[in-house]
Amino acid sequence: MKNLIDLIHKADSIAVVTHTSADGDALGSSFSLALALDTMGKKVTVFLEEPVPKMLDFLPGQQFVSEYEGGTYDLCICLDTSDMKRLGKRAGIYSNSKRRITIDHHTTNNMQADGLWIDESASATGEMIYKLVKALNVEIDREIAINLYTAIITDTGGFRYSNTTPESHIIAADLLSRNIPSVDIIKKVFDTISYSKMFLMKKTFQNLALYFDGKVAVSHLLNEDIKSVDAQNDDFEGLVNVGRNLEGVEVSLFLREEQPGVFKGSLRANEYVDVAQIASVFSGGGHKRAAGFSIEGGLDECVRKVLTEIEKVL
Amino acid sequence: MKNLIDLIHKADSIAVVTHTSADGDALGSSFSLALALDTMGKKVTVFLEEPVPKMLDFLPGQQFVSEYEGGTYDLCICLDTSDMKRLGKRAGIYSNSKRRITIDHHTTNNMQADGLWIDESASATGEMIYKLVKALNVEIDREIAINLYTAIITDTGGFRYSNTTPESHIIAADLLSRNIPSVDIIKKVFDTISYSKMFLMKKTFQNLALYFDGKVAVSHLLNEDIKSVDAQNDDFEGLVNVGRNLEGVEVSLFLREEQPGVFKGSLRANEYVDVAQIASVFSGGGHKRAAGFSIEGGLDECVRKVLTEIEKVL
Repeated sequence: MKNLIDLIHKADSIAVVTHTSADGDALGSSFSLALALDTMGKKVTVFLEEPVPKMLDFLPGQQFVSEYEGGTYDLCICLDTSDMKRLGKRAGIYSNSKRRITIDHHTTNNMQADGLWIDESASATGEMIYKLVKALNVEIDREIAINLYTAIITDTGGFRYSNTTPESHIIAADLLSRNIPSVDIIKKVFDTISYSKMFLMKKTFQNLALYFDGKVAVSHLLNEDIKSVDAQNDDFEGLVNVGRNLEGVEVSLFLREEQPGVFKGSLRANEYVDVAQIASVFSGGGHKRAAGFSIEGGLDECVRKVLTEIEKVL
Repeated sequence: MKNLIDLIHKADSIAVVTHTSADGDALGSSFSLALALDTMGKKVTVFLEEPVPKMLDFLPGQQFVSEYEGGTYDLCICLDTSDMKRLGKRAGIYSNSKRRITIDHHTTNNMQADGLWIDESASATGEMIYKLVKALNVEIDREIAINLYTAIITDTGGFRYSNTTPESHIIAADLLSRNIPSVDIIKKVFDTISYSKMFLMKKTFQNLALYFDGKVAVSHLLNEDIKSVDAQNDDFEGLVNVGRNLEGVEVSLFLREEQPGVFKGSLRANEYVDVAQIASVFSGGGHKRAAGFSIEGGLDECVRKVLTEIEKVL
């Protein structure tokens, strides 16, 4: 980390960038770092591809966000981004800056940098920024703490995913002691459902059907339903878990009709079924307990085809 | 705590009891303490009012559970229980034991004991047992850690409720480092939905209606729907939040028809409405943002009456 700290100390103007479709970890990491760099007297600018999502509009530090109007920076710091492509239109800001730092916790990072810090054991890039801010001798104030807490709860699902480590909790303990409105943050991040998501959830519940003595749950969303609301990509997140979480279910299949007659299939298993194997039959892939694929045809026909494969391994 | 440790050291036979309808904190605290006392060479028995719920059947230490067949214990330790009434049929085991200890984190505890330890700042009784086991110089092994982690996530809603403290996280960090299957525990505790709850959720989504420009969400369950499934009390938990979590909603009303024409009303507010005030109009009560009441009449009539009161304070 010493190399990074030297690069930061030597720079005057600093640009901070993160991946497109920036989430709580990407934005929380960016704003907390910007706040810390500002405290150090640096001229810091955060460049984003899209506006800050409404559910994250409480994050402090948004005064550092600006439109890019040309120019070169002493240093560009890229956060939570494994590949140049994920910088979208801002790739040039990074590649044209005099010096470049990349800080990331993804396993497959292939960024070029003068200072590269990859820590796959970090649950969130926010955990790494926490350590960096401490190493820079900047006080973790309330505004920085709000950003880092948001970053960590986003990427750990509120300390629920397998990437949560003892260190995630130790950092959370320190952040909570900074008088942050943790309950409000949690409500914003986890407990706010959009109209379109509410509609899709209702349909998912309605369409839920069980097969093979309740061991397999199947639900779907038809293209007409999806088109009837202005559904965003993250509105579909977790819908496959409605079936997965039902008692007695081993495999959950969720089919989403992206175009008429073209379904995106999600598979989840609870205990023993290898759904990557099932997905591979339909030229898809994934992990043992979480996989995906595409399939074409009518709904009933597609469900039947996948159920036939599931039945073989139940 | 020294008094408690003395009482434990002096006892040979120890009974552990907790409240009826024992949840993750009650059972996790009981089994972890039993495991620790057993390690110390004590003759320990856990007495429960009901079988261990299926969602908690993974908790280690159930070999200490036994039916009460008379007899007096050197010491009875009562956990997470604020009132003798909540011991049900096991009140006599506590009152007839030679010495009694009560350990609890509820604010209103009125138990009599030779050793009384109440800590309202503890998020869960499990946090207190963690400290007690350490003070007894018993190693927090994997089995004890599974119980204590379950206790803490149950009472903090997975580190989401306002009772979560920096200390909750510090203890969680230590427990996670004991190689516990935290993801499996979280799935069991938070992500397993019964058939009856799934049905009630589906109906709650279907019946959701919005009023006053989307600021008020109302949903309901009719008696015939409730009777059509074997619904348990905790199947209704959180259903009022379906409306509360919808974007733009300030007040959520949920009506559950307990008997034909008799509704139990739940009110939740997000930001500014005092729902205790609204509940009091119907002789109910509660907190500013979470309150309840009873109301009799037809569904439409009841909804209209409550909406009239809500409209006044929107």
